[in-house]
Amino acid sequence: MTNALQSIEAVCSLSIDADRLWSDILGTARFGAFGETGMNRLALSLSDGQVRGWFEAECRAFGCTVEIDRIGNIFATLPGSEPNLASIAVGSHLDTQPGGGRFDGILGVLAGVEILRVLKTSGKQLRHPLTIVNWTNEEGSRFSPAMMGSGVFCGVHDIEVAYARMDKDGVTVDEALEAIGYRGEHAPGYLPMAAYLELHIEQGPVLEADGSAVGIVTGVQGLRWLDIRIGGTEAHAGAFPMPLRKDALVPAAKVILACESVALRHTPGVATVGYAHVAPNSRNVVPGEVRLEVDMRHPEESGLAAMERDLTEEIERLAPGAEVSVVWRKAPVVFDAALRGVIRRAAAELSLSALDMVSGAGHDAAHLAGKVPTAMIFVPSREGLSHNEREYSTPQQCADGANLLLRSMLHADELFDIQPEMDSNDVF
Amino acid sequence: MTNALQSIEAVCSLSIDADRLWSDILGTARFGAFGETGMNRLALSLSDGQVRGWFEAECRAFGCTVEIDRIGNIFATLPGSEPNLASIAVGSHLDTQPGGGRFDGILGVLAGVEILRVLKTSGKQLRHPLTIVNWTNEEGSRFSPAMMGSGVFCGVHDIEVAYARMDKDGVTVDEALEAIGYRGEHAPGYLPMAAYLELHIEQGPVLEADGSAVGIVTGVQGLRWLDIRIGGTEAHAGAFPMPLRKDALVPAAKVILACESVALRHTPGVATVGYAHVAPNSRNVVPGEVRLEVDMRHPEESGLAAMERDLTEEIERLAPGAEVSVVWRKAPVVFDAALRGVIRRAAAELSLSALDMVSGAGHDAAHLAGKVPTAMIFVPSREGLSHNEREYSTPQQCADGANLLLRSMLHADELFDIQPEMDSNDVF
Repeated sequence: MTNALQSIEAVCSLSIDADRLWSDILGTARFGAFGETGMNRLALSLSDGQVRGWFEAECRAFGCTVEIDRIGNIFATLPGSEPNLASIAVGSHLDTQPGGGRFDGILGVLAGVEILRVLKTSGKQLRHPLTIVNWTNEEGSRFSPAMMGSGVFCGVHDIEVAYARMDKDGVTVDEALEAIGYRGEHAPGYLPMAAYLELHIEQGPVLEADGSAVGIVTGVQGLRWLDIRIGGTEAHAGAFPMPLRKDALVPAAKVILACESVALRHTPGVATVGYAHVAPNSRNVVPGEVRLEVDMRHPEESGLAAMERDLTEEIERLAPGAEVSVVWRKAPVVFDAALRGVIRRAAAELSLSALDMVSGAGHDAAHLAGKVPTAMIFVPSREGLSHNEREYSTPQQCADGANLLLRSMLHADELFDIQPEMDSNDVF
Repeated sequence: MTNALQSIEAVCSLSIDADRLWSDILGTARFGAFGETGMNRLALSLSDGQVRGWFEAECRAFGCTVEIDRIGNIFATLPGSEPNLASIAVGSHLDTQPGGGRFDGILGVLAGVEILRVLKTSGKQLRHPLTIVNWTNEEGSRFSPAMMGSGVFCGVHDIEVAYARMDKDGVTVDEALEAIGYRGEHAPGYLPMAAYLELHIEQGPVLEADGSAVGIVTGVQGLRWLDIRIGGTEAHAGAFPMPLRKDALVPAAKVILACESVALRHTPGVATVGYAHVAPNSRNVVPGEVRLEVDMRHPEESGLAAMERDLTEEIERLAPGAEVSVVWRKAPVVFDAALRGVIRRAAAELSLSALDMVSGAGHDAAHLAGKVPTAMIFVPSREGLSHNEREYSTPQQCADGANLLLRSMLHADELFDIQPEMDSNDVF
């Protein structure tokens, strides 16, 4: 046999152990569990420290060296056969929302661990080093912003600014890293990567509705966050005739409906008023002020800009005098075409029905995409539930995703030949 | 001169001292004051006890006997010349909202005190006893329901039920009355009344907009309180396409607008959504539940019923599956026609422009109207503000109202000949 045929055979014979992966998912959920199936493993909490410990030990047991960077990202690396190549990295995050589930982020890291085991057990050596990454504080529930670790790694956030962020008890990221022993020495971005692949649950209902086994993520939607303040005049709900009122909630209701209609005009854009605060919020007082918080997303920058323009015009028309401020703008991300092609080929080989889809949620991969060739794989979420203790993907869905990650990684190992360079950020 | 001419002359020569009334308003505001002009004199609080002490002492100083009933209502009575007649009562309440002003309720009691002084100073004796009443807990901020003291007096609320009501610290009405020494011995409803007159600020913008000096209140609007629960499905604001969402806030916004349009179809009815609660109320989560609280009022029962029917139909159409419950129904109150005629005549004599108007707010007089001939006088509220530290009526407006109360009371003294009867409730 030629080398090429041998390598194809090796790829075809490798497969993850679905039971072992499922057992890891259920087993590590004990770190930060609540209720039957809920997770409360906030970034850099004691339970985050515990699961990190498990992750490190497991990776070392399968031959990895483990390195920590200054923001606490963990890089577990299995050496490749060609020492001049940069790592192929796979990963996600082990932290959760306070009322989160057992799959969001966790699946991507544990699938990496399972892939390590498969490689070591089979004796298969990659050309590139393989690095399994656990990114610090993807959720942003305890410390904002979300996707902190990957943002620092990719140079989007300054490490000192990140260190100074505080939780509601006044504990800084710096102190929290120190407390669980995960303030490492490696500089942000120190590790050269040839490619980054992330497996994640969808967190939405699209795959379930479509019936596809997996999603090949084309990119991450861009985002606008708008804050809207609508003023009125507080008044007695009995004593103020309708024509003399300035009820802040009436124009606010019109703005809520306008958000929906703007999104429907700009398919596949979405717009949500997730937060509304009425003051004084007493049944028999005409509302004097309403604050709304809007989340708008679209896979294309032009679509996002059109949504922002249309909504702003509607607010001026429906709630004259309302104050509107854009508190966050995030451009859409497009994932690497070659790497998406690799995933598509791997899915076909595995006979997994695959849907090209945009990610509505943000992910660490969105930061990585600005630095290295990046792509993502989604598996279905039951009822689209996420950030919810009822979050669920079946053992088969998890295994399909992990197998697709394994095979895509193996193909990428053949295709991507990126040499590591000394990174100028690496000042240690 | 005939007796009748003598009495008209006496009526015409009597007038309240505007400066003395204003000085009482500002002076007694020290009991429970906050900020520049705010009042926080919750029912049966220490400061309520203090202002009650001042009121008792002032009434005794001007020849009254003071009696307390079991719910703490204070009755300060000046004897009349004809011992067989029942009292003409004037009064209101000295308690305030936690963020209230210096006029709501207070004006009506202090005007009564000022009338006492005028009568004593002038030597004018009435045929009927004159009773100045301070009703316990009109506001209902600390203990619900509002208008508790007048409700117990009129047999609308049971005294033992009222005693058991608790504030948020677990203190009962019974304990709070005991703590400030105002749990009296007189049975509910013990005092026979020939008529009840209440002077109050409008708490709305109608008189100011109309330019009238005073309002002659024709009655109190009836009321419906509806609770509405609209369910949806919580979902990720990025990952859920618009067509797959069940956003609870969108139908809720339609219901808010329907409330306004129903009120506008049933003039002079009013409808207010004063309270809205969104769950989980997070910008990037599609709302899974919205609760709305509606306050609807109309001066006629038929109008109120039509509003309730129309809104219920609109909710079924706009938010199918929404849960609607009517948590409070209160029938409209119509005040005594003869007593309103007396006020109208007195206003004409005083050259005060008077507007017949319905009260949007509830008042102790609404309970009294079910028991004795009752009427109310309103004076303008600046900008219609009430339950607000900026609540304001000018010294002249307060004096106009007090003079109209005095003159109406004097006319009523001539006209109303109601004999007291032994009340079967008087079990002591």
